[in-house]
Amino acid sequence: MAADAAPLGFRFAAAAAGMRFKGRDDVALIACDGPASWAGMFTTSSAAGAPVLRNRERLASGEPARALVVNAGVANAGTGEAGLADAGETARMVAEALGIDAGEVLCASTGWIGARLDLECLAAVVPELVRGLSPERSLEAARAIMTSDSVPKHATVASRVGGRTVRLLGMAKGSGMVGPRMATMLSFLLTDAACDRDFLRATLAGAVDAGFNALSIDDEMSTSDMVLLLASGAAGNGRLSVGHPDAETFAGSVRELVADLTRQLARDGEGATKLVRMTVTGARDEDEARRAAAALGRSTLLRASIAGAAPAWGRVVAALGASGVPFVLERFSLRWGDTWHLRAGVHQGAGAEAAVRRHLCEDDVEVVADLGRGTSRFTFYTCDLTPEYCLENVDPSLPDPPG
Amino acid sequence: MAADAAPLGFRFAAAAAGMRFKGRDDVALIACDGPASWAGMFTTSSAAGAPVLRNRERLASGEPARALVVNAGVANAGTGEAGLADAGETARMVAEALGIDAGEVLCASTGWIGARLDLECLAAVVPELVRGLSPERSLEAARAIMTSDSVPKHATVASRVGGRTVRLLGMAKGSGMVGPRMATMLSFLLTDAACDRDFLRATLAGAVDAGFNALSIDDEMSTSDMVLLLASGAAGNGRLSVGHPDAETFAGSVRELVADLTRQLARDGEGATKLVRMTVTGARDEDEARRAAAALGRSTLLRASIAGAAPAWGRVVAALGASGVPFVLERFSLRWGDTWHLRAGVHQGAGAEAAVRRHLCEDDVEVVADLGRGTSRFTFYTCDLTPEYCLENVDPSLPDPPG
Repeated sequence: MAADAAPLGFRFAAAAAGMRFKGRDDVALIACDGPASWAGMFTTSSAAGAPVLRNRERLASGEPARALVVNAGVANAGTGEAGLADAGETARMVAEALGIDAGEVLCASTGWIGARLDLECLAAVVPELVRGLSPERSLEAARAIMTSDSVPKHATVASRVGGRTVRLLGMAKGSGMVGPRMATMLSFLLTDAACDRDFLRATLAGAVDAGFNALSIDDEMSTSDMVLLLASGAAGNGRLSVGHPDAETFAGSVRELVADLTRQLARDGEGATKLVRMTVTGARDEDEARRAAAALGRSTLLRASIAGAAPAWGRVVAALGASGVPFVLERFSLRWGDTWHLRAGVHQGAGAEAAVRRHLCEDDVEVVADLGRGTSRFTFYTCDLTPEYCLENVDPSLPDPPG
Repeated sequence: MAADAAPLGFRFAAAAAGMRFKGRDDVALIACDGPASWAGMFTTSSAAGAPVLRNRERLASGEPARALVVNAGVANAGTGEAGLADAGETARMVAEALGIDAGEVLCASTGWIGARLDLECLAAVVPELVRGLSPERSLEAARAIMTSDSVPKHATVASRVGGRTVRLLGMAKGSGMVGPRMATMLSFLLTDAACDRDFLRATLAGAVDAGFNALSIDDEMSTSDMVLLLASGAAGNGRLSVGHPDAETFAGSVRELVADLTRQLARDGEGATKLVRMTVTGARDEDEARRAAAALGRSTLLRASIAGAAPAWGRVVAALGASGVPFVLERFSLRWGDTWHLRAGVHQGAGAEAAVRRHLCEDDVEVVADLGRGTSRFTFYTCDLTPEYCLENVDPSLPDPPG
């Protein structure tokens, strides 16, 4: 079996419903051969879309999942009660075709906010989706859920549990409206490890905290964000639970998977030309490191100057100050890639500045700000801010009026 | 006396020190004929610049002020202990030339972060500044403190206190790095009313809360932000204090002055083509209205679509949701200028949409989002987000290495 093979017990399909995008797949179906235990994290938006509301309710029921249907182009958010009914009807159609209960079907939607789903379009492709299900089609599914993404985000990791190999596969979409307060747009993580729900929940929370929640493209929160982690159990391992001897190994693999997807999302941010890692070191504790790193990652001015390959250390200072983390220039050091720009508040000269400029022209930019206060560190992910971000977003290409 | 005359007791001067900008004035001096009582509000940045630290200390002393010296081009922030000494030396030079105590001189600086003041440049223009002092030169002073501003921000208001006319004059600068958590870049408010310090403090806090703290251009907090309110007492009114019969009239005039400057700042935001007022109505209480309006004003996606004259109501919904304020589509109404786009969640049709697009092409854009939950309202000020914002900020034109 190839190292990048999908976890056992899952099959994938994609189809072109043509609800908004033409000439490409825009609906994905992920089916589990048996009941999968699962965990989910959702946007904290008070205007969350219908699929978010529906999945939250399914999660609260404690029941396993058998399928996940995702459409791109229309978010089914800002659609009120009618949108909830549409999500329910989508689940019903998929459940009927698969011969399962509607309550076993999870939904996700991404795209225009305020437009209703076109259920006829969806109904027309459900048979094709079910016929097309295959363990080999995960990349096609990842491609079908893209909106403004330029490439699909897809990753696999293998882990060892109880002497067996278990597989993890993740996909994600999102290149705009990506903020750090919850996850990213959509991400679906699958494993064939047998896991209990409490363990899945804790593992997902830890991975999202260090990954999707440490990512900002434009500091916007979407109505549709969700991350789901489904475990089929088909690997036949002894069930993982909190405290299991291999629990940390498995959790590390989930973190690795999420970190990989996080970097893919940052690099493909709208208008972005560079992946930017903002690391704060020398903080008093991790919370302080995180607050400071997030302030760097969310600074439009700093991100704009990185687009221009300008070593704007004053903007680093301003962003750190805005975070409220205690700042003393004489203790502050700053490194870009391998080059120290300031050490203990002292500028390292024109040669260093030139080397920083060269680093800023690379595809992967690293900013390391040391506060000189302790030993804690945190890395936040973002991308550069270019005029193309604005150009891509001047018009959301509005849908027809709903309702 | 002209309605826009400066308050009695203040004189103004501007000069070209050439510390960074060439061929224009870059230092302003405001001198009071006698001791002025004053209040100040400052950035909450933990990396606040030396002038902020110095003025905070002067404010805590409770002593009156006699002069204010402001330079543009170099912020004297991120300069550590050396920067504090430079601010002190600037005050000493000005005090000596005016024949007052250094402790009576307030300082402000704006511009590059991380560069030291050039004290020789400053020393060279102090005599010229003192010679040039005139009650007529407030607009020249407002022009001298500009950085990336395209126009000076300057306003006057008259008020009635105890049967006498008292005058207020305000100036401000700031077109980038303007965030809502404290004030704006720099603003100086002057009045010839006699006022006690407690009253000045409360009046300033109220005006800033509804004005500069309800403004975002790029949601960035500067190291240098400050708003100072100086009262000469030269109008000869009975001293205003909290509870004075004319206290509210005067406070209203200060609010009006600050609101005027706030609008001027928003309209001149970096890259901006439009002043945008984001009003939330129908909120349960003012805090809720403010949180929701701030979320609209800080949304990059919404501001980008306003640049493109696209009526992106889905982005309004997403931003309101991100604020966490309870949102129910069926209670939500949205107006752009005079045109209702949605009423109680129902789209008002293609004609309304076309009218909204026309409104979005104007210089003054108004967004009114009604939550349908209560009677409270709040207005937040911003501008559209254009590719020019990014282009202006790709390179901060770094100074020579400090230290």
